[in-house]
Amino acid sequence: MLKASLRPRRAVYAHCDLPCGVYDPAQARIEAESVKAIQDRYQDPDKWKTAGETAEDYRARCLHIKEKRADMVKEHLWVLWTDYFKPEHLEKYPQLHELFWKATKEAGAAKKSQDPAQGQKLLEAIDEVGKIFWETKSA
Amino acid sequence: MLKASLRPRRAVYAHCDLPCGVYDPAQARIEAESVKAIQDRYQDPDKWKTAGETAEDYRARCLHIKEKRADMVKEHLWVLWTDYFKPEHLEKYPQLHELFWKATKEAGAAKKSQDPAQGQKLLEAIDEVGKIFWETKSA
Amino acid sequence: MLKASLRPRRAVYAHCDLPCGVYDPAQARIEAESVKAIQDRYQDPDKWKTAGETAEDYRARCLHIKEKRADMVKEHLWVLWTDYFKPEHLEKYPQLHELFWKATKEAGAAKKSQDPAQGQKLLEAIDEVGKIFWETKSA
Amino acid sequence: MLKASLRPRRAVYAHCDLPCGVYDPAQARIEAESVKAIQDRYQDPDKWKTAGETAEDYRARCLHIKEKRADMVKEHLWVLWTDYFKPEHLEKYPQLHELFWKATKEAGAAKKSQDPAQGQKLLEAIDEVGKIFWETKSA
Amino acid sequence: MLKASLRPRRAVYAHCDLPCGVYDPAQARIEAESVKAIQDRYQDPDKWKTAGETAEDYRARCLHIKEKRADMVKEHLWVLWTDYFKPEHLEKYPQLHELFWKATKEAGAAKKSQDPAQGQKLLEAIDEVGKIFWETKSA
Amino acid sequence: MLKASLRPRRAVYAHCDLPCGVYDPAQARIEAESVKAIQDRYQDPDKWKTAGETAEDYRARCLHIKEKRADMVKEHLWVLWTDYFKPEHLEKYPQLHELFWKATKEAGAAKKSQDPAQGQKLLEAIDEVGKIFWETKSA
Repeated sequence: MLKASLRPRRAVYAHCDLPCGVYDPAQARIEAESVKAIQDRYQDPDKWKTAGETAEDYRARCLHIKEKRADMVKEHLWVLWTDYFKPEHLEKYPQLHELFWKATKEAGAAKKSQDPAQGQKLLEAIDEVGKIFWETKSA
Repeated sequence: MLKASLRPRRAVYAHCDLPCGVYDPAQARIEAESVKAIQDRYQDPDKWKTAGETAEDYRARCLHIKEKRADMVKEHLWVLWTDYFKPEHLEKYPQLHELFWKATKEAGAAKKSQDPAQGQKLLEAIDEVGKIFWETKSA
Repeated sequence: MLKASLRPRRAVYAHCDLPCGVYDPAQARIEAESVKAIQDRYQDPDKWKTAGETAEDYRARCLHIKEKRADMVKEHLWVLWTDYFKPEHLEKYPQLHELFWKATKEAGAAKKSQDPAQGQKLLEAIDEVGKIFWETKSA
Repeated sequence: MLKASLRPRRAVYAHCDLPCGVYDPAQARIEAESVKAIQDRYQDPDKWKTAGETAEDYRARCLHIKEKRADMVKEHLWVLWTDYFKPEHLEKYPQLHELFWKATKEAGAAKKSQDPAQGQKLLEAIDEVGKIFWETKSA
Repeated sequence: MLKASLRPRRAVYAHCDLPCGVYDPAQARIEAESVKAIQDRYQDPDKWKTAGETAEDYRARCLHIKEKRADMVKEHLWVLWTDYFKPEHLEKYPQLHELFWKATKEAGAAKKSQDPAQGQKLLEAIDEVGKIFWETKSA
Repeated sequence: MLKASLRPRRAVYAHCDLPCGVYDPAQARIEAESVKAIQDRYQDPDKWKTAGETAEDYRARCLHIKEKRADMVKEHLWVLWTDYFKPEHLEKYPQLHELFWKATKEAGAAKKSQDPAQGQKLLEAIDEVGKIFWETKSA
């Protein structure tokens, strides 16, 4: 319960002190959470769909919306990679290029997969990127 | 220092446990932080501009990019207002409509103002929304 | 017949005299008419589809295009709500926030419903907004 | 006064009876009215700007927003030309291609001109298109 | 083999010497090739789909992505027609309006057809436009 | 002269034989050519502007449009990097990540620079990518 009541403040006030250049892996992560949530719901359309649509309709919308969300994941990750990270970061984290390449490829794979386990892998790839991002911010 | 080293984890893992329907006021906030950062930098173009552009060029880009960021703030707030909040929330928080209206109007005002104090007001409006959002999530 | 021959002029010349700030609920309405027309056509794909596509293909396109049109309805309504309406309007029409909230929620519902009766409700919600809009313009 | 009180209803209910395929030159016209309104305001920035921006800032925003509005005019006109009009319309109105070409070129010219007289020419070009459109609808 | 090894250089260096105003029918063509490739793949989903999706899912994605690509074809063609071509070109090539009208209509037809033969007709229409374009450039 | 008359055919028919997966570095290159052309024209606004705009207006539009074109360059490069290139390509071209990172950073730098020499560097970075791309296609 404590955790729940604290989380909001953390999330909302997390980046008040950004000095300049506002970047945040949360943007990619939120979209990726959406991707995974869609993969979850795709598994059980009858549970999630509303009365005005068939299970087939619901699934078609899942695919369509996931496509867009996965594109947003890519976009946010690409921006971080190209715009935020500098040569000095790369020296310290030589795996950075490969991490981003795999994470964006995983976002591409999310368009072709309805399996939430795939979405989980995408989230984990983003968290690896996020971990490094926050290390560079607190350095 | 402890604060700095903890923040990353909080931000990156904050919404792992979202059940379904991924909404997060952080999306509006990140864009609003960008708006305020641009207002700050607009004040001192010679400090921030690169060698290949004049102070006038830099300011023109400030205005242009801020316009877009402020639009994103609006978009994210509108989505929260229409898609996330339900009649039961409104019963408990009758000020909700007014809050969102003022917050999105503040985002509109941000296009016309280069004053970081205005951007700060926008951030505070978003945080009021965010506070309610997280209360409804932990309820 | 007179009505038909007059309508064009009315529509085309309707807003020649806008003083400043060009807003028009027609933008939301046109998109909502498109939403309803798609719901209608979804009911009878064999009647509407062309030779090069199956009924299933046609319906998938209905869903996809309706999703986008419904988003446009929301966008146009949100802009009216935040950008056009002022506190003095709200004093005179205290139901304004609720009207817009319900109208944009109805646009969201249109994504999940293939029933033209739902689209009709969306049109009526927009017309309620439109009625107030034009009253404020002629005031 | 009668005119003012009637106009709303006309605009709002104008296209209730569209049979299928929702097209309306009003979409292009509304954006073009916005273009012309911006050209008007550009002439007197001190009158229109808010306290938080300079006249130069205001004009930069005029140019930027006009660019986007003019693009929307083009987009809406192109859609009408390619999607709505059929070979039988062209037989009856052989000037159609030329009209659309000139109207979209005028929209392009609007990006490069701050003169409201230019915006007026754009509006007139759209009205020529609109006149034919409504003739084909009432035929 | 010679052809294959030469092609890259041609494509990559083709427009180095553009004087001003960068237009290139290749933009429309690349999107149209994508349209046709999707129509091809739609015919045999089991061959092309990945393990994480059904044949139905794959086809739904074909339709959705083709819709977008066909829109890009239209956009690029419209821009060429309105922005690049001048009255003097039209005098020399009086068929220009009709060519563009048919080519963009073919792009619209591509949304409704899964037949690669239709996509081939779209490519041929673009190549007719392209032939004239390059004649005007080398004139 | 021979070169000029041949170029069209090459560009227009260059990719007729693409097997599946339509990628082409020409998309990034065309946008980058536009970036450089804008930098060139920015140098001499009085030569390029039309009668309806001031030199300042013209330059503001240069900055605004270049911003968008540079974003397109990034987008097209990112897509090539993530979607086209496969691990086996990376084995053969271990410099690939670094090339793309620098090319997209150069596209970012183009937003901040009015110097055509910078645009030339962007074009050269894209051509390095393009050279490898076409080698992998003809392999």
